Amino acid sequence: MPTHTVKSFDEELKRLMNLISQMGGLVETQVQDCIQSLAKRDSTIAERVIQGDLKIDSLEHDVNDLTVRMLALRQPLAEDLRRVVGALKISADLERIGDYAANISKRSVALNQVPPARPATGIPRMGRMVQQILKEVLDAYVEQDAEKALLVWRRDEEVDEMYTSLFRELLTYMMEDPRNITPCTHLLFMAKNIERIGDHATNIAETLYYQVTGRPLTAERPKGDTSAFTVVEPEN
Amino acid sequence: MPTHTVKSFDEELKRLMNLISQMGGLVETQVQDCIQSLAKRDSTIAERVIQGDLKIDSLEHDVNDLTVRMLALRQPLAEDLRRVVGALKISADLERIGDYAANISKRSVALNQVPPARPATGIPRMGRMVQQILKEVLDAYVEQDAEKALLVWRRDEEVDEMYTSLFRELLTYMMEDPRNITPCTHLLFMAKNIERIGDHATNIAETLYYQVTGRPLTAERPKGDTSAFTVVEPEN
Repeated sequence: MPTHTVKSFDEELKRLMNLISQMGGLVETQVQDCIQSLAKRDSTIAERVIQGDLKIDSLEHDVNDLTVRMLALRQPLAEDLRRVVGALKISADLERIGDYAANISKRSVALNQVPPARPATGIPRMGRMVQQILKEVLDAYVEQDAEKALLVWRRDEEVDEMYTSLFRELLTYMMEDPRNITPCTHLLFMAKNIERIGDHATNIAETLYYQVTGRPLTAERPKGDTSAFTVVEPEN
Repeated sequence: MPTHTVKSFDEELKRLMNLISQMGGLVETQVQDCIQSLAKRDSTIAERVIQGDLKIDSLEHDVNDLTVRMLALRQPLAEDLRRVVGALKISADLERIGDYAANISKRSVALNQVPPARPATGIPRMGRMVQQILKEVLDAYVEQDAEKALLVWRRDEEVDEMYTSLFRELLTYMMEDPRNITPCTHLLFMAKNIERIGDHATNIAETLYYQVTGRPLTAERPKGDTSAFTVVEPEN
């Protein structure tokens, strides 16, 4: 096999990984900004996040095109193949995270039309935790570090637990005062979106682990989100 | 190229498409059953759906393994490559639909612990619409029919509109009586899950269209879900 063919595959692989890193960087900023737009009640930031989602969608298309071309023309094997297929999956997760950030921002715009509800601090705290997890998994991707991916994968339980507790708290506020119902419903969905961002960061960790080691993370992840089973009754 | 190699690829492709159809059939049943468990307040059906999700996850792993093996050993090109990559994407969408059906069932179990809230009919109606859309896109997959895929893709707007109207309705019920808050919150998330099932059916339609025609469905899909911007104020 002539050397330039091999080199060329490496170059395409580098380009693919750069695209993922670029997407990851944008998505990190979007997540950070959507939490800011909520914490500061700032609709200008929110609008920027909503607009910014288009760029992420367009990068996902670039990743799709490049991976399909690499599969067709380069016919990669073993770890190379896992990297190309991995990029396809990771870009889909990043695109979804971007969608959730945009949805959180849309809800921030709605929340800014009504007086602030009491419990706006829990969600930014959960948001910062998920931001940190996302940052760590993207660092792990750049370093192709399976151990780091495993650490991230284990942390999702904390997010789920925080979500379940926020869910109960928000239901209680809604029962206290009907004026809390609209804002708290949006906060509930925002919390759910943040929890889902955590799930997608976990997916990325799973994909990365498989990509680097060739072994799946098969053990069932501990599940801390029991909110679907939650029943909260009004006091009176 | 020896004929048996080609035949063997066709056999693997048939097996891959059968796996997708099998997964699709199971997912259809799960969606139907989770709507039933809600409409009939039947926790036994709900438990069956929750358990049944494992089988779908395991089929997704089978699809993943087979596609990666086909990419590595068969190195397919053009339409064959699109079919293999398409199966990878479609199985991920089906797996998510299964997750949503299981989540709806978990919430049915929670709802059965409290007296029924008023508006349980809107969600089953929305559920039946999404069931129909899912059925049509799976039929389109079996027939590899791009035109049918396009028809499904356009119908998602109806689902979004129904969801937005249900969202407002449920907020109103919550404001009327605090005892409605817990059940209506679960109904809100169930409605959202059904709307997401519709989105994933739409994704499958997009993947199928590209797979058959080689052209992406690029035009922006009309968005009818404006619930993220919704503000409903209490009457008093």
